[in-house]
Amino acid sequence: MWHLQRARSRRTSGRLDTVATIAIDAMGGDNAPLEIVHGGIDASKRGHNIVLVGDRARLEPILERAQEDLPIVHATETIGMSDDPAIAIREKRDASISVAARLVKSGEVDGLVSAGSTGAVMAAATFMIGRLPGVSRPAIASYLPSGSVVLDMGANLTCRATDLAQFAVMGAALARAHYGVDQPTVGLLNIGSEAGKGRVLEREAYALLESLPHVDFVGNVEGTDLAAARSNVVVCDGYTGNILLKTAEGVSKMVMRWVVEAVSEPEYAEAVVTLTPAMLGLRDRLNPERHGGAHLLGVKGVVVITHGSSTRLSITHAVDTAVEAVVGKVPEMIAADLADSRGLL
Amino acid sequence: MWHLQRARSRRTSGRLDTVATIAIDAMGGDNAPLEIVHGGIDASKRGHNIVLVGDRARLEPILERAQEDLPIVHATETIGMSDDPAIAIREKRDASISVAARLVKSGEVDGLVSAGSTGAVMAAATFMIGRLPGVSRPAIASYLPSGSVVLDMGANLTCRATDLAQFAVMGAALARAHYGVDQPTVGLLNIGSEAGKGRVLEREAYALLESLPHVDFVGNVEGTDLAAARSNVVVCDGYTGNILLKTAEGVSKMVMRWVVEAVSEPEYAEAVVTLTPAMLGLRDRLNPERHGGAHLLGVKGVVVITHGSSTRLSITHAVDTAVEAVVGKVPEMIAADLADSRGLL
Repeated sequence: MWHLQRARSRRTSGRLDTVATIAIDAMGGDNAPLEIVHGGIDASKRGHNIVLVGDRARLEPILERAQEDLPIVHATETIGMSDDPAIAIREKRDASISVAARLVKSGEVDGLVSAGSTGAVMAAATFMIGRLPGVSRPAIASYLPSGSVVLDMGANLTCRATDLAQFAVMGAALARAHYGVDQPTVGLLNIGSEAGKGRVLEREAYALLESLPHVDFVGNVEGTDLAAARSNVVVCDGYTGNILLKTAEGVSKMVMRWVVEAVSEPEYAEAVVTLTPAMLGLRDRLNPERHGGAHLLGVKGVVVITHGSSTRLSITHAVDTAVEAVVGKVPEMIAADLADSRGLL
Repeated sequence: MWHLQRARSRRTSGRLDTVATIAIDAMGGDNAPLEIVHGGIDASKRGHNIVLVGDRARLEPILERAQEDLPIVHATETIGMSDDPAIAIREKRDASISVAARLVKSGEVDGLVSAGSTGAVMAAATFMIGRLPGVSRPAIASYLPSGSVVLDMGANLTCRATDLAQFAVMGAALARAHYGVDQPTVGLLNIGSEAGKGRVLEREAYALLESLPHVDFVGNVEGTDLAAARSNVVVCDGYTGNILLKTAEGVSKMVMRWVVEAVSEPEYAEAVVTLTPAMLGLRDRLNPERHGGAHLLGVKGVVVITHGSSTRLSITHAVDTAVEAVVGKVPEMIAADLADSRGLL
């Protein structure tokens, strides 16, 4: 196997500028490998060390045509969306996602990015990289455009109160790295703001969250609060989080479509042309591709999952996200904070 | 007690134009009684028969100042947001919501509208009006602006598969009246489109929904589908539904705020003035006040619950919603369709 340059730190003009090495699962996603490779090329141009993992015979021609050179770690197999993730991970030892996960495990890279099947990424990460000490269940954390990290987004459809409390610790570690706040605030997603609201799960989690160190608990937050980002972190079970994220995506698309419909009369044409730059900026602000994918938190390394429909832009942003978590030592912080909470969780 | 004119039907130019009588809980909500009474006045001007229920000494001066006359049924007590609903309904026999519910029960009115505590409305409706035969749990159904009825919105935080199946029957009856479709389509809210996705609840409900008469089941729908209204009805447990509705509300407010922010530069001022009529139309389209409140389905009468912050506009629309369900015989249809599904539910 090609020997990879390890992550190193260097000081540039007084600022700690750490270069991390990120493995990209070049075979995962609807647009693999073409868009994924181009995303890797773009990320590399932004100064990140990139390793492509996948079928060398398919990746090399893309690099050649682009007149670019990136290290490739060859993987002979691919896990498709129709494969059962748990079975595929056991049977396809040389799948690109498995090879990428083993690179993280061995420390040859600092993190991985994949647009492949979420189930397969989760299985590879959990079985091959392994959970951090004290973590019961890894969780998927996404950024909402309004400025909160929400988890779990679907790794654990049903949860216990202690899971939600662990999510709070993990989400706070990520929020520290992403938003640059020392004491991120954490809210519990619920159907009302008062303590005592919700199902047994939320009532038990509320009590637990109040007792945790490293968690600045602000109480319940509602869907209506999400837009205002009342807390840096929002915790919920994975079923609810998945519904919430997709609802937010669907509704923002709907509203933008309605904006376009509302101004489609001919008498508005000139004004619309004037406002086009502003509207393009807004579209970017809402574009999920720019929000950097989702973190699988709770494993011994940085793992970023992006949409199956990821484009080169999504991959580039996902690499930024991964590097940020490596530099911010998110896995290390999670392990340390969970150790401090031992006995409670 | 003032003797109320009963609902009657009359034919106007070949079209069945039914006049329904709706009781309004004039003491419920943050803006009671002033806004509620004015909402009743406006609804009455739209041709609906209105009965105000509440403290006569407080309601009469409002009517006098407005130089309007509406029948009042006196109620001496009020249930506040801080009251425990179940206890308050038992102890305050003469609360406005209880008196309104008894008017529905006795048939003196066809339905009621309340902006009071949702818990109190539910308790009054369930205990005083009573459930329809075959209904295990009444559910709250809301209209999404995109064109679907979603239930349950929070009456039942945890549900069994048979509950979701009953919600499907109830929601389909409402969709027939509201959207004027003979065979409304029903979707199951889930985290993926394929059968087999979701928790045990969704997997069991999926199988049951496929087997029901009167339910045109289209399979799973996701949050991203809501904007496209892939089905007339969406069923889910009440915890998830409440999160979904509030998320949709929060996100649409956020996007509209971002639209305003995006065009706030001075160079856009003229174009913004030109587009103002279009934007006001869009704001109306998204305004929850115009979506007519939520139905409590499964009780022997029409019960419409509106936001605690309801204004006269919300109340007027809620009366429209209630009348539509009376005219569409929604409770009768629910009872008949559930009877046909006996053995399955």
